[in-house]
Amino acid sequence: MERADIAIIGTGPAGVSAALTATIRNKKVLLLGSALLSEKLAKAHEINNYPGFPKASGAKLAEVLGQHLDSLGIAITEKRINTVYAMGDWFALQAGEEMLEASSVILATGVLAGKPLPGENELLGRGVSYCATCDAPLYRGKRALVIGYSPREEAEAAFLSEVCAEVIYIPVYSAETHLPDKVRVVCEKVSGIAEENGVRTVSTDKGKYETDGVFVLREAVAPGQLVPGLETEGAHVCVNRKMETSIPGIFACGDITGTPYQYIKAAGEGNVAALSAVSYLDKSKRV
Amino acid sequence: MERADIAIIGTGPAGVSAALTATIRNKKVLLLGSALLSEKLAKAHEINNYPGFPKASGAKLAEVLGQHLDSLGIAITEKRINTVYAMGDWFALQAGEEMLEASSVILATGVLAGKPLPGENELLGRGVSYCATCDAPLYRGKRALVIGYSPREEAEAAFLSEVCAEVIYIPVYSAETHLPDKVRVVCEKVSGIAEENGVRTVSTDKGKYETDGVFVLREAVAPGQLVPGLETEGAHVCVNRKMETSIPGIFACGDITGTPYQYIKAAGEGNVAALSAVSYLDKSKRV
Repeated sequence: MERADIAIIGTGPAGVSAALTATIRNKKVLLLGSALLSEKLAKAHEINNYPGFPKASGAKLAEVLGQHLDSLGIAITEKRINTVYAMGDWFALQAGEEMLEASSVILATGVLAGKPLPGENELLGRGVSYCATCDAPLYRGKRALVIGYSPREEAEAAFLSEVCAEVIYIPVYSAETHLPDKVRVVCEKVSGIAEENGVRTVSTDKGKYETDGVFVLREAVAPGQLVPGLETEGAHVCVNRKMETSIPGIFACGDITGTPYQYIKAAGEGNVAALSAVSYLDKSKRV
Repeated sequence: MERADIAIIGTGPAGVSAALTATIRNKKVLLLGSALLSEKLAKAHEINNYPGFPKASGAKLAEVLGQHLDSLGIAITEKRINTVYAMGDWFALQAGEEMLEASSVILATGVLAGKPLPGENELLGRGVSYCATCDAPLYRGKRALVIGYSPREEAEAAFLSEVCAEVIYIPVYSAETHLPDKVRVVCEKVSGIAEENGVRTVSTDKGKYETDGVFVLREAVAPGQLVPGLETEGAHVCVNRKMETSIPGIFACGDITGTPYQYIKAAGEGNVAALSAVSYLDKSKRV
């Protein structure tokens, strides 16, 4: 894959806005995320403060954003980015086993809803993982437990079931699951993750499950996990008014930069982040 | 007039967005500016990076913003604010001879296009004025010269002609003027303002005009003129990420806060400024 000028991670209003502006400014954009755009957006009941769309449903707003992308010929690449590595004057984006390349990056992944699970942070990298594709080999022939925050994570659990001896899937949503018979679906409320005598345990409101590896799969990844070394404050990336982060060439916009969590704020920041990225790229060329 | 919770000065995308969000949050909003919304917006040829409106004309965008205001029953008060005074826990807004009151203020006046005229800053308050309504009495029976940046300023010149002995009007636009016979219209390019032997002179590309008072009337006023004591940087108001200015209770959004001058950035900032003003008001009440 050719190196993109700007990789934009996230397809909510912030990412879409950044993609529109960057494309108009003739940059080669790699827009990464769900083709359905933001799940949170699509599910929003009514949005009344996105100027120009009185009493819009989230679905309506997602529809017009999609049409706007289409009108400029901007495609969405449906890949989940696990980690972004700064390589000097470019960035490597790990998407499962694949590496993508970009000269600059805009983070528009949204913010993690709620707090991490008890034990999640403590055991991350020691039996807790955010990436089934990356870490499945570690659990070949062993037991895995997936905590999935959206139906999209079911594909990850199905993949793990091809590699692991046993897979338990706990959906954190109410929709019906569609999984291979080998996957045991447990519809209970997770209360925490722990390590007991070398074994990982996941406790729920109704029981406790032993496993070797716990996969916590959400739409958004904590920004510090996504970009090692990035300056963050709680769940948010630190940015200035130009949407520059602590790493030159990486910009951020939308909920990931902090409150208020509002669609029009996100769209505005996407525009600013894109123009700052354009300016960064133009300066790099002149050097 | 009852005291407003939030006075919003300016009816471009920033001011409109702020008014929508503040109204939804049940605040009493006083939206001040042109009922035609931003002149710059209406004249914009094509805007392609306001997400949700592919290839929108400026007029189209102004139309949908107006409809959105209507849908929430938000009226525009067509008054020009000359100065905002901090009065402790409220603000006084001078509109000609009238004083309006608000518990907080959002500045969304846009940015002055271009630089001040040579001599303008030096003679401001000493023969140069930005407010015909305020300063007309000083020139009763004397000579006045109006440099008008939009047809809307013609009403000010007409008013001056009722008070002054002689009024010259120099339009800084190409549209036909509609003025009383008493007003002498001079279609020349202004090059500067000076004081010579106690008389004010306005030089153009074709001549020099003597007068007693020069009125420079533009859509936007420099923020430091509008709000005495406000921290500014060049033509811009200093704000943080919450759109707070250096004066508690005064917020700013849109072009007045700096580049990029983009509609979607302005709309996003209007939302943030409104929510910050709401938060400021709620805190004040609790004290």
